[in-house]
Amino acid sequence: MSASTEPMTANGVDVPGLFGTIDVVRGRRELAQFQFRATNRWVIGTHSRTTIESFSGAGAEHTHVAEYAYEADHPEVLVGADRAPTPVEFLLHALGACLMAGVANIASARGVALTAVEAKIEGDIDLQGILGLSDEVRNGYQQLRVSFHISGDAPPETLRAIVDQSRARSAVFDVITNGVDVVVDVATAS
Amino acid sequence: MSASTEPMTANGVDVPGLFGTIDVVRGRRELAQFQFRATNRWVIGTHSRTTIESFSGAGAEHTHVAEYAYEADHPEVLVGADRAPTPVEFLLHALGACLMAGVANIASARGVALTAVEAKIEGDIDLQGILGLSDEVRNGYQQLRVSFHISGDAPPETLRAIVDQSRARSAVFDVITNGVDVVVDVATAS
Repeated sequence: MSASTEPMTANGVDVPGLFGTIDVVRGRRELAQFQFRATNRWVIGTHSRTTIESFSGAGAEHTHVAEYAYEADHPEVLVGADRAPTPVEFLLHALGACLMAGVANIASARGVALTAVEAKIEGDIDLQGILGLSDEVRNGYQQLRVSFHISGDAPPETLRAIVDQSRARSAVFDVITNGVDVVVDVATAS
Repeated sequence: MSASTEPMTANGVDVPGLFGTIDVVRGRRELAQFQFRATNRWVIGTHSRTTIESFSGAGAEHTHVAEYAYEADHPEVLVGADRAPTPVEFLLHALGACLMAGVANIASARGVALTAVEAKIEGDIDLQGILGLSDEVRNGYQQLRVSFHISGDAPPETLRAIVDQSRARSAVFDVITNGVDVVVDVATAS
């Protein structure tokens, strides 16, 4: 239904659909309200499993096309069994994937065909915090670094601007750099 | 080698090994320095794939027992293909799994046998931010909520205190509530 002359499949992104979605939400702001959910269950030791099934948004309930499940564990050097990556490594995945989705959408919206994009994400953490050995060392990462290698049919400054705009509109980048309120409640049973 | 009378396998946690590790790091603080890494590669559209292979810490390089790989995508309602959960859902997994690992370790250290532990994690997000429809709406979650159901051979107040202590020493909880510096650099190619 779009008059755009851009191909639907630029980078695999449905650009008319993307702009159409933004236009619809511009007219009905309540459609922008989403809630995402996950359920984590303890397995054994530091090993747990999260299922991700449903979310709400755009005025409706949605179910993912599959019930996604992910495990996490601590490595052996931290007295786990390394049955899966650590939770802090999944933070890196979330950050990289969020920035990457933005890069693809923004490049497509700007008519840039991407060839290949890679982001290496690394984080330094001083475990004196979580091990309870220092109250002056924070529990979490002290710094994260994301190194993009991006290639496509545009000049370097255009490619850099795509990454910059992705960072400026990334949900995970915002949460990780600015923080968010987390409410924890507990129900118990014997 | 421990004189502890606690079973090695309380909740599947090697408690003597955990205390032994803390004691070793107490004597050699440089062993607490860790670096975690991930590489995210664009696949198509908003679909990307992260590999997690190696990390450094305790004075050495380590390789996970397997090369772990995780995908992410946007759902169809957000013009993705739903080939995997969204990046913001992986944040929920990271948070739940980190708190859960802490619960297991702390319960074990305190001699509490856990029966079952589940954490439901949910987050509200107003997509007017990432859709560029409002500069007053943040890009990320506006609030996260974690609801624990924990059962074990201890009174409710003891079980609650275990969750509280896990929150107080969680790396992911710290990052998500307090934020961390993220440096992004970009290399380009045609």
